[in-house]
Amino acid sequence: MLGLRNYWYPVLWGRRLGKRPVPITLCGERLVLIRDGGRAYALQDRCAHRGVPLSIHAGPLGNGVSARQVFPGTWTCGYHGWTYDLKTGTLVAALTDGPDSPICGKVRIQSYPVEERLGLLWVYVGEVGPPPVEDDIPQELLTQPHFMGGRISTREGNWRYATENAIDEAHPRFLHREAVWRYFKQPAPAWNRSRLEYPEDGKYLAYIPYDVHREDDYPGLGKWPQQPWYQHGGRNAQQIAIRLPGMIRVRQPGFTIYSWFVPIDAQHHRYVQTAVKTGTGPRLWAFRAYYWLYMRWVNQHMFNSQDAVMIRGMDSPPERLFRPDLSIIGWRMMCEAARGRGKAVASPAAGVGSEAVELAGVNAGSEGRQG
Amino acid sequence: MLGLRNYWYPVLWGRRLGKRPVPITLCGERLVLIRDGGRAYALQDRCAHRGVPLSIHAGPLGNGVSARQVFPGTWTCGYHGWTYDLKTGTLVAALTDGPDSPICGKVRIQSYPVEERLGLLWVYVGEVGPPPVEDDIPQELLTQPHFMGGRISTREGNWRYATENAIDEAHPRFLHREAVWRYFKQPAPAWNRSRLEYPEDGKYLAYIPYDVHREDDYPGLGKWPQQPWYQHGGRNAQQIAIRLPGMIRVRQPGFTIYSWFVPIDAQHHRYVQTAVKTGTGPRLWAFRAYYWLYMRWVNQHMFNSQDAVMIRGMDSPPERLFRPDLSIIGWRMMCEAARGRGKAVASPAAGVGSEAVELAGVNAGSEGRQG
Amino acid sequence: MLGLRNYWYPVLWGRRLGKRPVPITLCGERLVLIRDGGRAYALQDRCAHRGVPLSIHAGPLGNGVSARQVFPGTWTCGYHGWTYDLKTGTLVAALTDGPDSPICGKVRIQSYPVEERLGLLWVYVGEVGPPPVEDDIPQELLTQPHFMGGRISTREGNWRYATENAIDEAHPRFLHREAVWRYFKQPAPAWNRSRLEYPEDGKYLAYIPYDVHREDDYPGLGKWPQQPWYQHGGRNAQQIAIRLPGMIRVRQPGFTIYSWFVPIDAQHHRYVQTAVKTGTGPRLWAFRAYYWLYMRWVNQHMFNSQDAVMIRGMDSPPERLFRPDLSIIGWRMMCEAARGRGKAVASPAAGVGSEAVELAGVNAGSEGRQG
Repeated sequence: MLGLRNYWYPVLWGRRLGKRPVPITLCGERLVLIRDGGRAYALQDRCAHRGVPLSIHAGPLGNGVSARQVFPGTWTCGYHGWTYDLKTGTLVAALTDGPDSPICGKVRIQSYPVEERLGLLWVYVGEVGPPPVEDDIPQELLTQPHFMGGRISTREGNWRYATENAIDEAHPRFLHREAVWRYFKQPAPAWNRSRLEYPEDGKYLAYIPYDVHREDDYPGLGKWPQQPWYQHGGRNAQQIAIRLPGMIRVRQPGFTIYSWFVPIDAQHHRYVQTAVKTGTGPRLWAFRAYYWLYMRWVNQHMFNSQDAVMIRGMDSPPERLFRPDLSIIGWRMMCEAARGRGKAVASPAAGVGSEAVELAGVNAGSEGRQG
Repeated sequence: MLGLRNYWYPVLWGRRLGKRPVPITLCGERLVLIRDGGRAYALQDRCAHRGVPLSIHAGPLGNGVSARQVFPGTWTCGYHGWTYDLKTGTLVAALTDGPDSPICGKVRIQSYPVEERLGLLWVYVGEVGPPPVEDDIPQELLTQPHFMGGRISTREGNWRYATENAIDEAHPRFLHREAVWRYFKQPAPAWNRSRLEYPEDGKYLAYIPYDVHREDDYPGLGKWPQQPWYQHGGRNAQQIAIRLPGMIRVRQPGFTIYSWFVPIDAQHHRYVQTAVKTGTGPRLWAFRAYYWLYMRWVNQHMFNSQDAVMIRGMDSPPERLFRPDLSIIGWRMMCEAARGRGKAVASPAAGVGSEAVELAGVNAGSEGRQG
Repeated sequence: MLGLRNYWYPVLWGRRLGKRPVPITLCGERLVLIRDGGRAYALQDRCAHRGVPLSIHAGPLGNGVSARQVFPGTWTCGYHGWTYDLKTGTLVAALTDGPDSPICGKVRIQSYPVEERLGLLWVYVGEVGPPPVEDDIPQELLTQPHFMGGRISTREGNWRYATENAIDEAHPRFLHREAVWRYFKQPAPAWNRSRLEYPEDGKYLAYIPYDVHREDDYPGLGKWPQQPWYQHGGRNAQQIAIRLPGMIRVRQPGFTIYSWFVPIDAQHHRYVQTAVKTGTGPRLWAFRAYYWLYMRWVNQHMFNSQDAVMIRGMDSPPERLFRPDLSIIGWRMMCEAARGRGKAVASPAAGVGSEAVELAGVNAGSEGRQG
């Protein structure tokens, strides 16, 4: 429930880390981000001596009490001057015990790998040695020039609810039907069937719709949905794909949305939203204006607030899945094969076919797997 | 502690249930009240699919996200369009999975009987089949024309504390002695003895005072109570009776107070207060004015706030009962014989006599029975 | 963690206890302070009948509901008039059950010894018979004329963190280095060695510094501390000593600071700060002005807010002690020999020498002892 370890997660805009340390919680671990000589570092946010946070900071009444940098390449606890190496977490000095303090070199706190890419700070929490950060960033973002607009927010609800909501194929058909963001676009269908695909060598999971019904007649009830005039529009083929440890990519005509669901603790996650347009020149400037004047509010704020309400309200297990939850089942199988999990219990690239569909349709109360 | 099941409870003024569903908690169960075609219904407030509340509603930023009625006689979850029959709780459509969704009819959530009487919505939570709602409403209210003024509030404290406070014979002699509501009325006595009666075929429990002492001399301490000039008045014979599952009836000259203590959860209860005058014509209009201009504030608000303070402050077991707690003991025995409890451990109509009195006087730390 | 029992603790300024009872929590026990005939008393803050607090008091809407004194020498619960003897806690009357109530004399709640000294109310919580309160008050305060200025506040953090912070020798060298209170005084050294002493027949624990280094060179890092011009000043010999159950005495030139760390519950303590100047006449008046115009704010508020930040942030065990924590180890050994603890596991007056120092320097993660 505290999240998949052994992955790189984006946690903060790089420009937000300056002289002041920034405490964050990631996969249930409290750590502190510190910038030194242009580079970012992360240490466990707890001094080994008496347990005070290394990010400790007091307001004006405590006039200026805070942990701080006394010597380059180190960070010093504000209580007794214990001084840790930023790279290794090793205690290199206990200032108030003199240069010959016998405890130096005998204490180490956890340090975490940090990288800065795309203007974001990426942190790695895990037991197996970290792969290059590029392994956990979509390739196209690292190689193509682009504009990226984004927001980072903290939301209620376990990261698993947030991620499963993102790959959940059915909810836009009902939850988002009347969102302003969907006005004058082709509405979501009433329902359709889908099959799963694993593009880019199985790195991503995607669902491919077929047998699409824009409207239908429900026996004994009536027709659904009603489609008001402002909910019509041309075809708007978006492609949705998800990858570990919890990133969704939504390709829209002209731009792409990348979002990360970053575990904080059992009840909270960090929501990193971006909108990216590749290219250069005037079209990029036009998109920048579109992003700041329209999309940031109508999509990233209003539209996704609808999801936030559901993620906050979710409460499962117990749960009862239905046919469109095939994509959620596919995602859960992908999680079973996550990095650092030993042997995968099911190959994500293997076909998850009709059996799973039947299972979803008639299941008798499946229990959610722990992630 | 979560309340007596298998009874009808008043939970809301009927006029407060309109187009918007109203979530309530009753006896520890979360349910949602929904009005359809004039009638009120109650369903378990949790969609079987992913556990979001069926009463879910988002503010303007989530622009209009909410569960709603898509088809008459049903209620649709706001997340994926799961549609439940209001009467039975059966899933009759999963809109986003099409008319042939194999899950339809295979899922059912709890539905609760609801009735509307006296302008109040009555809900039944229990395992044994519900009796007519009239069985749990005082007969005279159903048959006689009357004016009823009332308030419903949520209060801290277990329903058992609130109900036992209501039937507790001794506390008005001390707690309420200086309430404005008691000014210019005959003050409560210093103390008296009582015997229990079970009027109306054992449906009610009442205590009948005798051996009344308006003032007394406490050896080594002095006289009590002092009676200031504004605490004198003519005889004011009120009759107090209680019935299951937690309703007190206080007959005052000219009108009657009916109050219900409705279990919410272990720490909260709903307090339904009413003042009723039977009859028609000008005297009823006069009482209506008296109620709105005086009684609602001085009795229902100020006087009962004194009880609220004690109910919130109570903390038992452990407890030590004393002689005047005879009425509480009688009430607890009545609870043992409540509907749906199998064989009664003690007949409420049986005499609860001097043994219980002695017990109350000399007990060595009785433990509260669970209700 | 709830504090050392069997000691007298200062809890309230005597002038703050008037007609209204004052509820406090001490060593995890809820009690109520009551003044009667000039003397202060303390009872368990819970009526034996139904568990409501004896300090219960309602605001204006509950118009005047409160426990109160009906007869001298007693206190009466606001609910049913149960009346307790202030000295013994015995139930002497149950007013609403008449003078012959058989429960009288059969119920007793806990009463606590209370004394008033130095303008403070001292309360004793414990199992072994209380010694004279003078045993737990510094002798000089009882015998010499003086001015005492003080503050009492409630702070977050276990009393043990607060007490150990007070005797912690190293933290002023770093935490308080830049406090305004330290301007234009001789700065704390970079580091020094100390030995423990047990003055006044072992009643106090003190540390005596030697081998003092005002500045030093940390290999591979640099010199520390930098000493700006406003952090220089003449020698300012202060002597710090601590005694059970948690009082620190800081002798400064011209006055003395006495502070008590009084256990409330596992997460909170009461902080009783005083500044005392002995003598009489104009010098005392000058100190009074100095206290109110400068010291109360710059020392008692600002300086000690720095400690408050750390006490609130502390989180141990686990912990790793280092050489300067010798004073903390000495203090913990003193606690082992506290009153009412049976045989001491270590005599506080025995030398705690180089072994403990070595232990502190190289320990492998000592666990905090429970206090």
